[in-house]
Amino acid sequence: MDSQELHAAPHLTTEVHGPLEDLETHLLAHHADIERWLRLQWHAKKRAPFYASVDLRNAGFKLAPVDTNLFPAGFNNLDPATVPLCVQAVQSAIERLSVAASRVLLIPENHTRNLYYLESVATLRDILQKAGIDVRIGSMLPDLQAPKTLTLPSKQTLRLEPLIREGHCVSVKGFVPCIVLLNNDLSLGRPPILEDVHQEIIPPLHVGWSTRLKSAYFTHYSRVAQEFSEQIDIDPWLIDPLFRNCGEIDFMKKEGYECLADNVDALLNAILRKYTEYDVPHQPFVVVKADAGSYGMGVMMVHSADEILALNRKQRTRMSSTKDGKSIRRVILQEGVYTFETWGSHGAVAEPVVYMIDHFVVGGFYRVHTTRGVNENLNAPGVHFEPLPFINSCITPDSRQAPDAYPNRFYAYGVIARLALLAAAREIN
Amino acid sequence: MDSQELHAAPHLTTEVHGPLEDLETHLLAHHADIERWLRLQWHAKKRAPFYASVDLRNAGFKLAPVDTNLFPAGFNNLDPATVPLCVQAVQSAIERLSVAASRVLLIPENHTRNLYYLESVATLRDILQKAGIDVRIGSMLPDLQAPKTLTLPSKQTLRLEPLIREGHCVSVKGFVPCIVLLNNDLSLGRPPILEDVHQEIIPPLHVGWSTRLKSAYFTHYSRVAQEFSEQIDIDPWLIDPLFRNCGEIDFMKKEGYECLADNVDALLNAILRKYTEYDVPHQPFVVVKADAGSYGMGVMMVHSADEILALNRKQRTRMSSTKDGKSIRRVILQEGVYTFETWGSHGAVAEPVVYMIDHFVVGGFYRVHTTRGVNENLNAPGVHFEPLPFINSCITPDSRQAPDAYPNRFYAYGVIARLALLAAAREIN
Repeated sequence: MDSQELHAAPHLTTEVHGPLEDLETHLLAHHADIERWLRLQWHAKKRAPFYASVDLRNAGFKLAPVDTNLFPAGFNNLDPATVPLCVQAVQSAIERLSVAASRVLLIPENHTRNLYYLESVATLRDILQKAGIDVRIGSMLPDLQAPKTLTLPSKQTLRLEPLIREGHCVSVKGFVPCIVLLNNDLSLGRPPILEDVHQEIIPPLHVGWSTRLKSAYFTHYSRVAQEFSEQIDIDPWLIDPLFRNCGEIDFMKKEGYECLADNVDALLNAILRKYTEYDVPHQPFVVVKADAGSYGMGVMMVHSADEILALNRKQRTRMSSTKDGKSIRRVILQEGVYTFETWGSHGAVAEPVVYMIDHFVVGGFYRVHTTRGVNENLNAPGVHFEPLPFINSCITPDSRQAPDAYPNRFYAYGVIARLALLAAAREIN
Repeated sequence: MDSQELHAAPHLTTEVHGPLEDLETHLLAHHADIERWLRLQWHAKKRAPFYASVDLRNAGFKLAPVDTNLFPAGFNNLDPATVPLCVQAVQSAIERLSVAASRVLLIPENHTRNLYYLESVATLRDILQKAGIDVRIGSMLPDLQAPKTLTLPSKQTLRLEPLIREGHCVSVKGFVPCIVLLNNDLSLGRPPILEDVHQEIIPPLHVGWSTRLKSAYFTHYSRVAQEFSEQIDIDPWLIDPLFRNCGEIDFMKKEGYECLADNVDALLNAILRKYTEYDVPHQPFVVVKADAGSYGMGVMMVHSADEILALNRKQRTRMSSTKDGKSIRRVILQEGVYTFETWGSHGAVAEPVVYMIDHFVVGGFYRVHTTRGVNENLNAPGVHFEPLPFINSCITPDSRQAPDAYPNRFYAYGVIARLALLAAAREIN
């Protein structure tokens, strides 16, 4: 391994790696069965989400998805060498969606100052164009009256055009698309301009964050993990974070706190039982998240029910609203999964994010944070991104190497990410 | 452009580039229409060949396929970075072929000393394995009684197992496949061991070189080129080599010579008319090829009918048999397409070979010959191979660059290669 590879590779440092090595060994040994099972699942369901990104956490003893984004940003963080793989996957997606379609209208978030996000939109537009799709960007920015061209730090330009509604059809001036591709997670609700549109809208409006709940998603994921685990004879807990949810919560008024504290306790006990079973010497923790939250907002880690009761005003304020100031009334309590992967010589904590288009894994990157800990949310200010080297594209396991060699570890990531995608497909349909 | 890129890039040197620049400009301008048209073609036909490689010749004023191989070798010449693209395409192919299949038996050529070929088989096996397929290699070597493991120059090993026939089923010991994948072009005829087999054999036996004729294939290709050219409003000659064929020929007995000479004359005149139309200052030539030939054998270039009549005994002997000593009784006369691409500082003549799996372009390489000319067959002793850089994967055109910039020239190659593939699909079905 040369120095460049060393630099580009993440380190997995954990005292407890028995079960995960077992898991990676299992995945490799059942490689053909796994791919066949996944093929049959997609064949039965027909339609994968157009795209998705999955946040994974690798604790050494456990590898699990902790969030699945159906409106992924961050395409600009992928290795540019993955573009051909993205293009091929987009072509597959379009064949399945609508073979005669050639025009796509992309609707992004209403961010105009988040340049990282706009770079992602530009990268996504380029991928669609290279796949032979006529693509235009229809913006829902309320004050956009005429087309506006932004020049990004990468020197790329991005032309935003006002979205037009006529009858049951949305368009931008002179361009009526066959397909409307949402890259806007609809946190603020289903936009009236997109209701009763006769064109195909993907993902459908009902999976926007105005109606989607993480708890519903993870219910699907648990079932997928259960079915998959039966196939390869593993404990589903190794790939599935435990979770619970409560009724209505009001952090400011401290309403619903007792239920929350009780559930935190119950969940910590359940995690502890599994940690004991596998001799895991770490302290269980629980992640409290807005059930309809995104952008890493409205998230906190707790190690005991007492921490809930002792939240100060600042903490409670932070847990009261998420993106766009939307208030949080429901939370999901999820088993915290340690990440024992680090990046670079200073040991910055890292977690992988895997990208899929259609039902294909197309690449990924590490979210890296130099000041956050192994049991903290890395999707926070100060985060940076390191693309997975293309050669580790999550689809090229090598049975001649050790189960934990990079291509094999990344293959495991690709498998778990596809299970997360399958759960999303069930959630959507 | 840095020096490495310069080194890795082919040069196109031609005095006449008007029509081809027009062609590349047309392809780029019609990118979305082309991809849509291809999607509709595959949708209607359902099934692309499992794999294929296409030899292209780029004369600057003309870009055309000159041979399409349905049993491609040379996978070892592809850039290793293309493996993920190959894996994704294999997964698509298997989904279409037989969603529940997980076992494939690969039947290679009976070469045991051609190490380049065996390296290709090993690479193909690895690609199938990485796609999650259980693959074993069933050999038709007549003297193979027990499994034999070969160690290749790359240090890879290749295990050949004797093919077994029981009832309507072929297998190797302990392994009954769902799919039999031929990488043996059946030059010597349809092997009895593969007749009336109930497993799926791909490609089907009837496209082996014992029955396949290049003239039948190029009849399909001409129709595809015609239909495609109507879509983007170009002269089909720009992408289609003219051809003619004769009845039975016996080079040793000089039987069928008059017909051959007449057809050479007629074809040279037809080419000359097109050269005059486009002001091409080169001399027309005709390639005489075994109609059922492969491996670059049984091929000669002629510039006049007189050359046919003046063939000496050695030349006639060389035109009398092809691979495995199979005798040549039918030939195809094909318009010779100059290649004006060169590789390296010494200007070695080069021609691109494009690889496809399912209906996806997955990569390619240049066939480079330092001592052959622009109007000669490069598939000859002394040839070497230069992989196309992965980034130029033939599917990532860039409309912001000039029509003849590498990504766009390679996109043109990918389009013409897919037309050649479409013709093969029609031929097979």
